Amino acid sequence: MYRSIITGTGSYIPPTVQSNNDFAKHTFYSDNQEPLATPPEEVVEKFKQITGIAERRYTTDELNTSDIGAIAAQKAIADSGIDPEEIDQLIVAHNFGNVIKNTIQTDAVPSIACQIKHQLGIHNPNCVAYDILFGCPGWVQGVIQADAFFKAGIARKALIVGTETLSRVIDMYDRDSMIFSDGAGAAVLEYRDMNDANTGMLGASVQTHSLEEVNYINMGQSFYPGSDPHIRYIKMKGRKVYEYAMKYVPAAMKDCIDKSGVQINEVKKIFIHQANEKMDEGIIKRLYQLYGIAHPPEHIMPMSIHWLGNSSVATVPTLYDLVRKEQVPHHQLQTGDVILFASVGAGMNINAICYRY
Amino acid sequence: MYRSIITGTGSYIPPTVQSNNDFAKHTFYSDNQEPLATPPEEVVEKFKQITGIAERRYTTDELNTSDIGAIAAQKAIADSGIDPEEIDQLIVAHNFGNVIKNTIQTDAVPSIACQIKHQLGIHNPNCVAYDILFGCPGWVQGVIQADAFFKAGIARKALIVGTETLSRVIDMYDRDSMIFSDGAGAAVLEYRDMNDANTGMLGASVQTHSLEEVNYINMGQSFYPGSDPHIRYIKMKGRKVYEYAMKYVPAAMKDCIDKSGVQINEVKKIFIHQANEKMDEGIIKRLYQLYGIAHPPEHIMPMSIHWLGNSSVATVPTLYDLVRKEQVPHHQLQTGDVILFASVGAGMNINAICYRY
Repeated sequence: MYRSIITGTGSYIPPTVQSNNDFAKHTFYSDNQEPLATPPEEVVEKFKQITGIAERRYTTDELNTSDIGAIAAQKAIADSGIDPEEIDQLIVAHNFGNVIKNTIQTDAVPSIACQIKHQLGIHNPNCVAYDILFGCPGWVQGVIQADAFFKAGIARKALIVGTETLSRVIDMYDRDSMIFSDGAGAAVLEYRDMNDANTGMLGASVQTHSLEEVNYINMGQSFYPGSDPHIRYIKMKGRKVYEYAMKYVPAAMKDCIDKSGVQINEVKKIFIHQANEKMDEGIIKRLYQLYGIAHPPEHIMPMSIHWLGNSSVATVPTLYDLVRKEQVPHHQLQTGDVILFASVGAGMNINAICYRY
Repeated sequence: MYRSIITGTGSYIPPTVQSNNDFAKHTFYSDNQEPLATPPEEVVEKFKQITGIAERRYTTDELNTSDIGAIAAQKAIADSGIDPEEIDQLIVAHNFGNVIKNTIQTDAVPSIACQIKHQLGIHNPNCVAYDILFGCPGWVQGVIQADAFFKAGIARKALIVGTETLSRVIDMYDRDSMIFSDGAGAAVLEYRDMNDANTGMLGASVQTHSLEEVNYINMGQSFYPGSDPHIRYIKMKGRKVYEYAMKYVPAAMKDCIDKSGVQINEVKKIFIHQANEKMDEGIIKRLYQLYGIAHPPEHIMPMSIHWLGNSSVATVPTLYDLVRKEQVPHHQLQTGDVILFASVGAGMNINAICYRY
């Protein structure tokens, strides 16, 4: 039986560390442009308690989204051992394209995928390169699309990259700016005859809620008093996003597990979008409750948010790459383990993939 | 046999007419910021001779890419007669997202697809909405992706929208600004059992050339002397694009026709991206030469560029919608006609679809 198999992974961890202390020097404002009553030190401390984020990484000024995506892609290709000229689909998930440092324009013409294909030096014109915009779940969705292309017979090898430089679209006067970071992750996916082995991609679930939810994450004016309304930044209705995720993500994960024909006790690791530690813990708890289990197993959910923040499309492939290469304490993968990828973000969009390692 | 069938189309023709005379008032500059030696009136006249463009349409100030995409989408849905809640995949092709009038930022957070889903009032969370960035061939590529999702069994009905407001990213001091326009087109694609009828989507070809070609169309500084290098506009190396298209597009079209098992004399209409009339005529001529035919048949290629300009992803679905609804003189479609969709653009990307009406 043919299955989609991840044969290589890579990630790019930016070198510049921005600690919570760096933010404590700021004055934060609310969405009505009033200074927050709480002193910045307390805002930062409370932020850490909820999100788990102590520090995050920013890319250096000269690198753009396409550059760091290409670095992660190169590592994934090397890890898989494939000849890059054999890639049929080069899929890049992002949201803001290249935002050159100290400018405010998104640049995705030509597409980031074409820019990465160029940087990888791939000649083969049959390597089709495109960008997908799907909020934070873009990388997971790219994997789902590649799997569909395999099943449709139009591709056999795909490179899926998630890359973002959110440090260039944040409003420093909004406390939510502390959440976001830069990063890139990539994987090579291949369609292989696994014979009787029930390994690889087992199933997926996807949902888009845009009726009430379309502006839970969007672009908006700076909270700084008198700021230019023509210059806009990433904005999040945190409470709404939290409630949304708690309501829909566990159900989508369960749907994916059930469709894949596996039992909840077979699931060994859950790689969930690194958005907020308390929220991620809440989602996992609810997932197990849906199966009548009061407490999730220990070490089920590797986390990188403490030191990497939320790099949007890059969190899931980066975290998977780190665990796969045994760089996260208490987290190893064994052949036959069922793992889950899951994400939630702007749109709002949700997705999950059930995969046997 | 199951085939992908276009069951409805729609388009949005913006109301504001910008004639070539409007441009003759400008001073044009070259890429080294020197004024062109030729007087603007002559520049404009020569431009018309080559591109065929006499006028183009711009959207009104209050409408954005997502708004006009939603209008085209609504028409396509009404034309097909489907219940919008049955759409499994809502795919939107664009390049610049929403660029609010008098700002320079691209806004695609949330994705344009989610914004259109919201405007269409679609509740169904299983209607997955995403954006594809693939240069001008993005709409054709969206159709190819929807067809793959059908074959993979993850969708049965798709809405594919191409929408763009290029009037907001052009450099008025660059004569190429005369090429670009605004527009939106959409189609509903359904997977249907056609029994013995050999109709619907027969085959497709796609190529991405990014090694030498990645910056043939990209973002760059205004040609106006002393312009701010941080503000960038759509830029095109016209001669390079022309040579590229002449070299690769006819071969990709032939590949698509041959793969689809049809004869060149069965092809009744070619819907090609409206980029440049002389170029499009050259491409068609070469295509027929590849089959040993000196002159393409009369009325093989409907054109809308004279009055609509180049609206990127919107040209092909708009032109097809107009011909399908018998709004282009000398161009009708008969059941059984083989037609070809083809496009070329930033990346560089090329694609073609062979379809029996």
